[in-house]
Formats: sequence, C-alpha cells, structure tokens
Amino acid sequence: MMGQGTLYIVSAPSGAGKSSLIAALLEKNPTYAMKVSISHTTRQPRPGEQDGIHYHFVDKANFEALIAKGEFLEYAEVFGNYYGTSQVWIEETLGKGIDIFLDIDWQGARQIRQKMPAARSIFILPPSKEELERRLNARGQDNQAVIEKRMSEAQSETSHYAEYDYLIINDDFDAALMDFKAIIRAERLKQDKQAAKYSNMLSELLSNGQ
Amino acid sequence: MMGQGTLYIVSAPSGAGKSSLIAALLEKNPTYAMKVSISHTTRQPRPGEQDGIHYHFVDKANFEALIAKGEFLEYAEVFGNYYGTSQVWIEETLGKGIDIFLDIDWQGARQIRQKMPAARSIFILPPSKEELERRLNARGQDNQAVIEKRMSEAQSETSHYAEYDYLIINDDFDAALMDFKAIIRAERLKQDKQAAKYSNMLSELLSNGQ
Repeated sequence: MMGQGTLYIVSAPSGAGKSSLIAALLEKNPTYAMKVSISHTTRQPRPGEQDGIHYHFVDKANFEALIAKGEFLEYAEVFGNYYGTSQVWIEETLGKGIDIFLDIDWQGARQIRQKMPAARSIFILPPSKEELERRLNARGQDNQAVIEKRMSEAQSETSHYAEYDYLIINDDFDAALMDFKAIIRAERLKQDKQAAKYSNMLSELLSNGQ
Repeated sequence: MMGQGTLYIVSAPSGAGKSSLIAALLEKNPTYAMKVSISHTTRQPRPGEQDGIHYHFVDKANFEALIAKGEFLEYAEVFGNYYGTSQVWIEETLGKGIDIFLDIDWQGARQIRQKMPAARSIFILPPSKEELERRLNARGQDNQAVIEKRMSEAQSETSHYAEYDYLIINDDFDAALMDFKAIIRAERLKQDKQAAKYSNMLSELLSNGQ
C-alpha cells in the first residue's frame, strides 16, 4: 500500500534559488518517489529544451481543446502563449504514491489550492534585500531600470508569502535544502499518510489473535 | 524576535521507545531550544529521582491548591497519586521560543489539545506485534498473565493513533530519530513561525527604500 503522494506548490521571487533547490532535492533524494510537474505550453521550444522534459509543447488548437475538456488544474496566457498544468497527470502520479513539485507563481498557487486543498505550499525567500539585488544583478550588465523592474516584480511575488504553509529562507543553500527535505519527510509522517502506508501493520497491532 | 515555541504531545504504547527517542532528540539536537515538560506529582520520589528534574514533587494539599487555582493544563489521579502539567510553566517557556515535549497518554493528550489547539501531537508505534511483545517481555522473567496485561494496555493506547498529527514507526531507532527531528524542523518552517522569526527581514524585503 503506497498511499497517496503529496502535491507541493513551490513559489518564490526570482533570485531566491527555487529552481536550484528543487533540482537538488530531486537529484539527491532517491529514497522517495518524487517528480517535478511538467507544464504544457504553446510557446516555441528554446535551444536545448526537450518535449516531455522541460515542457509538453503543444499547439494552440490542442491547448484550447484541453482547456475545453477541463484538463488543466490551472492555466495562464503570458505574452500570447499558454502555460498550464494537467490535472490528469497530477492525479495519476499522486495516486501512485509519488510526490509532485509544482514550480508556479502566487496566482497559479491560488488556483491549485482551490482545486486541490490537500496540496502543501512552500515559499522560498532570499535572506535580505541586498542579497536579492545582488542575485538579480549577478551578470552585472543590466541597467538600473531593468534591475528596478526585476526588484519590483520580486517584491510583488514576495508580498504573497503569508498564503503559503511553509517559508524557507535560502541564505545558506545546504541549510535551505535540509529545510526542504525536512518538510517532505515530515509531511510523509502525517497521520493519514502513515495510516494508509502501514494499514496492515496497524490492523495486526490491534488484533486480538497471534 | 524568537517567535513562539511549539508544544509537542508525544504518546505511545509501552515498548514503542518513546522515552529513548525524546531523550536522544534533546541530547543530540542542541541547535534548537527544547525542553521536556516536567510533571507535578504527589507520589514519593523513587531512588535516584530528583525534584525539578524527574518531577516537581509536591504534597497533596499543595497539588489541590494548584488545581483550585486552575494552574494545570491537565491532571489525573492514578493509584491515589496526582500527576499534572503546569500551564503557567508551559506558556512561559513557549513564550521564550522554546519547544516543549510532553510525554503523556491519549487521555492527557485530549485534554491538552482542547486547551492548547496549537499543540502538535506525535504518536510512536512499534514495527509489529511480535516486536512489541518481545520488547514488553525483554526481561524474560514475567509470567504470561503479566505480559498479556501489558499487551492489552499497549493495544488500548495504540487504538488512539488516529487522534495524532504525526505517526512515527520505531523500527530502526536512528531512522525514527530522523523522523522526529524532521517533524520539529518542518514545524519551525511553518509560515506563522517563520514570519514571526523573520519579521524584520520581511519588512525590509518588502520596503520601497534602500
């Protein structure tokens, strides 16, 4: 009996290190069954992007047919391209006892929470404004207006931190990764998850015979 | 800003390894501020037991005065002796940002949950009935009736596992200790705890000025 996986919504302002943390979590934690949700999109693949790995690339007609069938947990149109999360894949994967990580902004997070209240949400923060500015300007070649726009977007995203179940401060990367792992481990110890996983053992423990 | 500590209710049938796990958690985890709740009791100290370490030993008149003042979160009378948990000490200690572990049975746990709904509860289980019987009979010198009585009490306690937030299966001690630590770490990452701890940082991150 595997029990049901958990859907993790993970949001962060740019520069918080979200993608690196998710990548490290999945790479270094082979004990648990975990996957990253792969979005559908109608935008063109960029060099190096592979269908089924970075995105499911579909054309606009197909995407709109999936919308019509109600197959998306959430979707959005950004600069004329659609992006969406397939509900069917999510539910099938959770049903196999696999945890899913969904890298999404606060607006998508709200849609997911509404449709899947059992989802847990994690918000990742940089340790300070100074460090955030440093990370947003790591290449050191952008003008002040570009940096200010990124900073403003990062603040806008950050302002929604209180809508999440957990907050991770990514100051030291390894410590933040340990935080992330602790959340996953603890969520797997929740009574309902454990009772499903150990239902036979519990029946035996409580039985009267030998 | 320390934020508020968490009160952990920890229950288990005898033989699950609860006391050893709590002792190991507090001994090997000096990063976090953690204490075990020390009960008040009217029973006589046993050899080696120290006042203020194993129990707060008080006489019956004093205990009943504390009851009258409503100072106990929970109390019970067992074989003519009172045992109770001081609400004042618990609240003062939590207020200092210190986590408290309260080793208590399912009945006490129910009283605590009612009075302190922010408490988190953890139930520890042995890995099988066979292993539980082995542990309950470790000394190998008890007769069958004594073992059966212990087994029956253990089953009675176990039957309340579903009232708890987390279940830890203590098969391998080190893995169970890691489970325990993961729960404490994850609970400290809960949004409200982190927002209190990092309130200055959050204000700065969201401020417009430099």
